[in-house]
Amino acid sequence: MVTRLSHYFLRTLREDPADAEVTSHRLLVRAGYIRRQAPGVFAWLPLGLRVKAKLETIIREEMAASGAYEVHFPALLPREPYEATGRWDEYGDALFRLQDRKGADMLLAPTHEEVFTLLVKDLYSSYKDLPLTIFQIQDKYRDEARPRAGLLRGREFTMKDAYSFDYTDEGLDASYQAQRDAYERIFQRLGLEYVIVQADAGAMGGSRSEEFLHPTPVGEDTFVRSAGGYAANVEAFTTLAPEPIPFDGKPEPVVFDSPGTTTIETLVAHANEAVPGAPEGGWTAAHMLKNVVLALTHLDGTREVVVVGLPGDRDVDMKRVEVAFAPAEVEQASPEDFERNPLLVRGFIGPWTATGPLLGEDSATAIRYFLDPRVVDGTTWITGANADDAHVYGLIAGRDFTADGFLEVATVRDGDPAPDGSGPVTLARGMEIGHVFQLGRKYAEALGLKVLDENGKQVTVTMGSYGIGVTRILAIIAELSNDERGLIWPASVAPFDIHVVATGKGDEAYQLAESVIAQLEAAGKDVLYDDRPKASPGVKFGDAELIGVPQLLVVGRGAAEGLVELWDRRTGERETVPVADAVARLTA
Amino acid sequence: MVTRLSHYFLRTLREDPADAEVTSHRLLVRAGYIRRQAPGVFAWLPLGLRVKAKLETIIREEMAASGAYEVHFPALLPREPYEATGRWDEYGDALFRLQDRKGADMLLAPTHEEVFTLLVKDLYSSYKDLPLTIFQIQDKYRDEARPRAGLLRGREFTMKDAYSFDYTDEGLDASYQAQRDAYERIFQRLGLEYVIVQADAGAMGGSRSEEFLHPTPVGEDTFVRSAGGYAANVEAFTTLAPEPIPFDGKPEPVVFDSPGTTTIETLVAHANEAVPGAPEGGWTAAHMLKNVVLALTHLDGTREVVVVGLPGDRDVDMKRVEVAFAPAEVEQASPEDFERNPLLVRGFIGPWTATGPLLGEDSATAIRYFLDPRVVDGTTWITGANADDAHVYGLIAGRDFTADGFLEVATVRDGDPAPDGSGPVTLARGMEIGHVFQLGRKYAEALGLKVLDENGKQVTVTMGSYGIGVTRILAIIAELSNDERGLIWPASVAPFDIHVVATGKGDEAYQLAESVIAQLEAAGKDVLYDDRPKASPGVKFGDAELIGVPQLLVVGRGAAEGLVELWDRRTGERETVPVADAVARLTA
Repeated sequence: MVTRLSHYFLRTLREDPADAEVTSHRLLVRAGYIRRQAPGVFAWLPLGLRVKAKLETIIREEMAASGAYEVHFPALLPREPYEATGRWDEYGDALFRLQDRKGADMLLAPTHEEVFTLLVKDLYSSYKDLPLTIFQIQDKYRDEARPRAGLLRGREFTMKDAYSFDYTDEGLDASYQAQRDAYERIFQRLGLEYVIVQADAGAMGGSRSEEFLHPTPVGEDTFVRSAGGYAANVEAFTTLAPEPIPFDGKPEPVVFDSPGTTTIETLVAHANEAVPGAPEGGWTAAHMLKNVVLALTHLDGTREVVVVGLPGDRDVDMKRVEVAFAPAEVEQASPEDFERNPLLVRGFIGPWTATGPLLGEDSATAIRYFLDPRVVDGTTWITGANADDAHVYGLIAGRDFTADGFLEVATVRDGDPAPDGSGPVTLARGMEIGHVFQLGRKYAEALGLKVLDENGKQVTVTMGSYGIGVTRILAIIAELSNDERGLIWPASVAPFDIHVVATGKGDEAYQLAESVIAQLEAAGKDVLYDDRPKASPGVKFGDAELIGVPQLLVVGRGAAEGLVELWDRRTGERETVPVADAVARLTA
Repeated sequence: MVTRLSHYFLRTLREDPADAEVTSHRLLVRAGYIRRQAPGVFAWLPLGLRVKAKLETIIREEMAASGAYEVHFPALLPREPYEATGRWDEYGDALFRLQDRKGADMLLAPTHEEVFTLLVKDLYSSYKDLPLTIFQIQDKYRDEARPRAGLLRGREFTMKDAYSFDYTDEGLDASYQAQRDAYERIFQRLGLEYVIVQADAGAMGGSRSEEFLHPTPVGEDTFVRSAGGYAANVEAFTTLAPEPIPFDGKPEPVVFDSPGTTTIETLVAHANEAVPGAPEGGWTAAHMLKNVVLALTHLDGTREVVVVGLPGDRDVDMKRVEVAFAPAEVEQASPEDFERNPLLVRGFIGPWTATGPLLGEDSATAIRYFLDPRVVDGTTWITGANADDAHVYGLIAGRDFTADGFLEVATVRDGDPAPDGSGPVTLARGMEIGHVFQLGRKYAEALGLKVLDENGKQVTVTMGSYGIGVTRILAIIAELSNDERGLIWPASVAPFDIHVVATGKGDEAYQLAESVIAQLEAAGKDVLYDDRPKASPGVKFGDAELIGVPQLLVVGRGAAEGLVELWDRRTGERETVPVADAVARLTA
């Protein structure tokens, strides 16, 4: 097929869109691929639609190769199934809710676990029907608090979501592996570098979860990896806790005055003057037990204040905090929270007072207390004494205080040991490009999806959920693959195979170009032909570089001698060759 | 490609779905093409998705041939553009409205005139950019009061909508014609009989409008056509009004007692006793002027009572009434409406009283009065006298009463003259399969879409709008093409080219079938292969007939002798042929 620019619905823009925060957004709008309609909501212009279609074809082919069948669900769905699994509430403000003319509650689906589950329940009843993996490529909705970064995080976006159904754990493992393999093939075909990292599965209620991240310094996700092969996103990273230390015969804790030492920094300085028995190098932040007060808002709307204790050289990582307390929402405690809990003395909070435990499972208050896994039994700490201008030293975990549990909420650092013993980790950033989940039986239980097994017994089905953000991947490719002049598409998803530019005042170049594009078309190539008679060569080349078809063919000055130029958009290489050679190379 | 039924995600159902009102719904659900998710909202299963994709490919090809470019707009859109054109309100309850987390009003678009207009305004500025036709294939939303008939009238449905942009009326005519031609080619490729009828363009604010109807007695639309080539839907039919009649010297109207004659029937009977000067055959309903009281609800919520006068042998056609008064909603006047308008004496209403006009432009009341076009000046009528038990005869239009206007609201009948003089019309029923509209400048004016013309002058763009309901057409094909055993797809949109059924206890048939499907696949055919080892021949044939692939190939008893059966699903013909001949014929 040949598409002629003189008639094509395409206008490139000279100016960056005012609201573009990232390169992909800026270039996709300027080059005429997309247009914004509302915050996080975009229209697709012909060029963008072509790239999207190519991406979808690759995904469809690999889904078919994995044995998955395509279906298509509506975006508009009734409330009931999402109510049954709790997600109607859990999704909070991120769910677009509406009512129909009869007042029935409906939603625009953010993902489709519920209705896929019900579909299989509706049609299948025997273990013989399984395994089954079905997928769709479909427009989804999430009312992001701050839709930004163009297609990277939209409110309407296209996703490929797949769901697997098995009646044994081994079956789920196999289905999961098949989708994981398909994802590897998809990203390899797209030429998109990826790291598979362990992800937190908690929020979706499952057992195993991995993310495909594209490693890039501008990524919004942080992950860690060790030389020994461990990789996890920071939300899923687990701390390698030290062994407990015997504390028999250790001295009792001692309260000391510490006026004005409401920060770890000032406390360390004061401890080095006031607290005996300092180790070589003196007391450091790592010897202090920092206590952070957080406020949870539970799904039922109740607010709860909790305290987390962690070594003073660490901070809480709010992303890890969110995962740890999900589905509750978490924020730093407010002044009002402190007013309502007068036992918490700001700047001097600790799990203990001279008269007994203040926080944790034996607490004198109702406040739950959680600990970083490094605070194992027998470790000794300097921490607040829950009284104005007073701290305590020699306070021993497991003897002087206990907690309601351990939580992974502390920041992860370069050099922290990987939990699998494969050595120290390093931090890196990445963009999520895919996600595979073992959901397990949560959805099947909530919605009653059972089948008869070999023994005629009803067993609950176990499920997997597998997602690729189609429009997001498109944006990521654009984000990675560009230069100061515009986009540079990989051939696998480029809107056209070849961009032919004709220049010159006479008819010669245009006539030669017509013969070239006819040959390219005959060879099955998709050709964009810039035949605009009045556009200058500069405008044409500028548009070609902005649009970013990887292979350019320029018919201009050498046309009379039967010479054309081949330009490689990525490397910038240009080569003058006889027209027959050019066609032969492009159709080889 | 070969799809093996043993693994395919497909379950046919023995029972009809309880909520199915029409054949297409019943069969598409039973044969495993679609599943209902909410009233008027459906999921597409693999078989259904295949048919839909084929239909979309045909539409895309003809759109490309017409010179239209494909784009894709979001379903979720902001309120503002629809506010600017008035459609935010006009759509009434049929519009799905919602608010995002920030309280911004949004909608699920029923059609996209507004945002297409804004897109072109955004990118184009010169007459040189025009003409332009752009289209999308996209999921749309309409909150139907009574979603029924499966896909024939859903609340979420897939539409191909195209919009043309021109700067002259001649340009619009040409763009309109190109889309009209494309629609003809599409329906011809689908083998779908059609009639192009004039449609009412009023509601969309345009000048010319035609519908493509498939003629069928079960259609929900009524249209008329004359032997001379006139065709229109009843909403667009216009009455050929008779010439006015001179009324100089005609006698004055006479009021007469007519106790209890509150219906046309009783009035005719009474008139034949009480009214002098009856024509040959006596007074008939056609001599009575019937006055119908209607209640309009305007967009601003105000309620208005109006009266329509028409010959007593006609009724008002509520579909024509709706069009005539759009965008107001219309219903028959309620008892409360009569209470509020005590001058309207039920059963005895007329446009006149002995003391002067009661209705119409010279009315003594505020009630507007409209007339059927047949009530031309000089026609003489028997009608109500606006007093209990009293009528009047000899009342002459144009002398004794006038109206606020003529309206096309009366029923249309077989034998009514076509307005173009092409002879009497006959009524028929049809299903709408496409619609082409000249919108004119309404949207461009409301949204400020102008371009510079050849003389450097700003001119408002004129637009067309062209729609095909993709999922509706699919349902219509299913509705037309079936028998008591199941669906019968035309080859152009069948989910597979060939359905191969292997039967028999030994391996012989399955081995031969494998060789057959390999050859069919090599020839590029899409094959559904029923390889289920445990299903009986009866189940397999039943499923095949239900699914409705037009060409069946059965490998069974004759396999040992290299014989197979070719079944034509439509005609029911079965033919035993050597396997090589069968393959040769199917791949010819």
